[in-house]
Amino acid sequence: MSKYMQSRFASLEAYVPGEQPQDKKYIKLNTNESPYPPSPGVLAAVNAGEAAKLRLYPDPECKVLTKKLAALLDVEPENVFITNGSDDSLNFAFMAFAGPETPAVFADITYGFYKVFAQLHGIPARVIPLKPDFTLDPADYYNAGGMVVIANPNAPTGLPRTRNELEEVIRRNPDHVVVVDEAYVDFGGESCIPLTKKYDNLLVVQTFSKSRCLAGGRLGFAVGHKDLIADLTKLKYSTNPYCINRLTLVAGEAAVDENEYYMDHCREIMDTRKATTDALRGLGFEVLPSAANFIFARPPKMSGEALYLALKDRGVLVRYFSAPRTCEYVRITIGTPAEMAVLVQAVREICG
Amino acid sequence: MSKYMQSRFASLEAYVPGEQPQDKKYIKLNTNESPYPPSPGVLAAVNAGEAAKLRLYPDPECKVLTKKLAALLDVEPENVFITNGSDDSLNFAFMAFAGPETPAVFADITYGFYKVFAQLHGIPARVIPLKPDFTLDPADYYNAGGMVVIANPNAPTGLPRTRNELEEVIRRNPDHVVVVDEAYVDFGGESCIPLTKKYDNLLVVQTFSKSRCLAGGRLGFAVGHKDLIADLTKLKYSTNPYCINRLTLVAGEAAVDENEYYMDHCREIMDTRKATTDALRGLGFEVLPSAANFIFARPPKMSGEALYLALKDRGVLVRYFSAPRTCEYVRITIGTPAEMAVLVQAVREICG
Repeated sequence: MSKYMQSRFASLEAYVPGEQPQDKKYIKLNTNESPYPPSPGVLAAVNAGEAAKLRLYPDPECKVLTKKLAALLDVEPENVFITNGSDDSLNFAFMAFAGPETPAVFADITYGFYKVFAQLHGIPARVIPLKPDFTLDPADYYNAGGMVVIANPNAPTGLPRTRNELEEVIRRNPDHVVVVDEAYVDFGGESCIPLTKKYDNLLVVQTFSKSRCLAGGRLGFAVGHKDLIADLTKLKYSTNPYCINRLTLVAGEAAVDENEYYMDHCREIMDTRKATTDALRGLGFEVLPSAANFIFARPPKMSGEALYLALKDRGVLVRYFSAPRTCEYVRITIGTPAEMAVLVQAVREICG
Repeated sequence: MSKYMQSRFASLEAYVPGEQPQDKKYIKLNTNESPYPPSPGVLAAVNAGEAAKLRLYPDPECKVLTKKLAALLDVEPENVFITNGSDDSLNFAFMAFAGPETPAVFADITYGFYKVFAQLHGIPARVIPLKPDFTLDPADYYNAGGMVVIANPNAPTGLPRTRNELEEVIRRNPDHVVVVDEAYVDFGGESCIPLTKKYDNLLVVQTFSKSRCLAGGRLGFAVGHKDLIADLTKLKYSTNPYCINRLTLVAGEAAVDENEYYMDHCREIMDTRKATTDALRGLGFEVLPSAANFIFARPPKMSGEALYLALKDRGVLVRYFSAPRTCEYVRITIGTPAEMAVLVQAVREICG
């Protein structure tokens, strides 16, 4: 740290993204990307004609995309907040709705960025352990005394809660915002977006990175009561109003137009998930019942780290989390059936 | 504001971007965009093949672009920080190097976002008036007692200071970072980047939005001592590590490869600026001697607002700032020679 850096950042530990090694060609099952390319309309929208318009600023209001998304989600445009990936929505939510006097309340095992956002903004974190079977008990979040953040389905476990269970959390925190992070909801979860019409303290965050095959485009959004969206918009306009580039805007618009393409691929991924889960269980793995595009799996007779290293050696990247409760597991992104066949064969060699 | 928003944001006034009216086709001379498209390599780089890769996350380290930029700027990759537009670099600099106990020091008439960043992060602003002729007196910034931010050339005046004058400011603030915002430096200014090798408290911020015709791509960067860059990187990785999308990265790489294309267009714009300045002076305008891709001009016999409205009526958009010291002027972006001929003819009709 330089002598010029504000001292409050001395203990800040930044988020560590999944590794992107360049030494050889890997089967990448470590960062929950889609194995499928974006839809034909997206490929057509990204062209030299649009590139020529890059001389002009993008629309900071993202009007066209906002309108299309609102129609798809059955809400009004005033309920939609578009951001540079869902991390950006989450960051603004932490900044707006938590603070030194308003803790952030989240699980001990969940998306690792929540604790980074809390540290960054000087927000006390109230961390609630998942149950021994990795499930989240909604009752732990009643009257939580701060902004609640729940990933549903959760990461890296893939375990979902129902909309009814989360509604009870929202209902029982009338003085605080409840953020439901639905990055993985399209792979079998139940979205809370319909509840945004009933509760003014609910913010649902989603992303185009996973189910919409646009991790490289950086596009996410939040849905909530118009007053929450106005608060977030004020912060966005005080930070970087033009944070979404023109090409991502046209790509996102085309992606919304071709929603069925993406939902079809989500169903394929769910099928592949089932086949992979069955195969790994047949090899003696414990695999949590996932509603996401990844599985959280514990190998028999070896640590998560040992399996991670042995797979990497065989050209298959998965993600390993070294914390005490997660170190026996690996998180495996669901790829194509062919990629998963390679994974299962590699696992068979390693564990057999 | 919702009842859930942190109360410290109650008085926050967000930045107001230049208007982007959709009611008819305007000659846009209001947001300092380039009138020229990006270079051929950029148009070729943005294609369906790259769009197909959007399923994958971008490189959060922006390694290829960082290396190319470092070579172009004659610094090391560890001295370069790549961001989503230069606003993002500025935001992180305010967050890192100023704070409740470290004021931000900047001019009364300059880029309007500085005061927004200060408000957003709870940073006291020490605002120093420009001299009556709109020039910035470097001596006003010696031992400034906080992080100094100087736009060079300044906006909306276009007036530059020399590198030697700014070096004295940097030298005389050894305990604080000096940010030199060079958004417009390629149109006749003198960059302070060479001084980053000599001073560990200098951060130079530039953008691809103006001279590199990529406003719609959202790409900016900062250059400074490696410790400053490490501090900024820590904040970026605690906010949104993947903030630059894949397509903008390949566009930016191609733009650096074709630097001469952009420098040629900068020279054209400087020629057009001279012709426009001469024409407006011939019509009785006061025009400040600009080193940017815009001019700050005071019409004879009418207010800045009256001229702005009359031009808008004729399909030409310029920017008007209603504050007391600037309300007699308009800021006019330099477009193509043909666009400026339309402007001058419209002005002749309005003022004639």
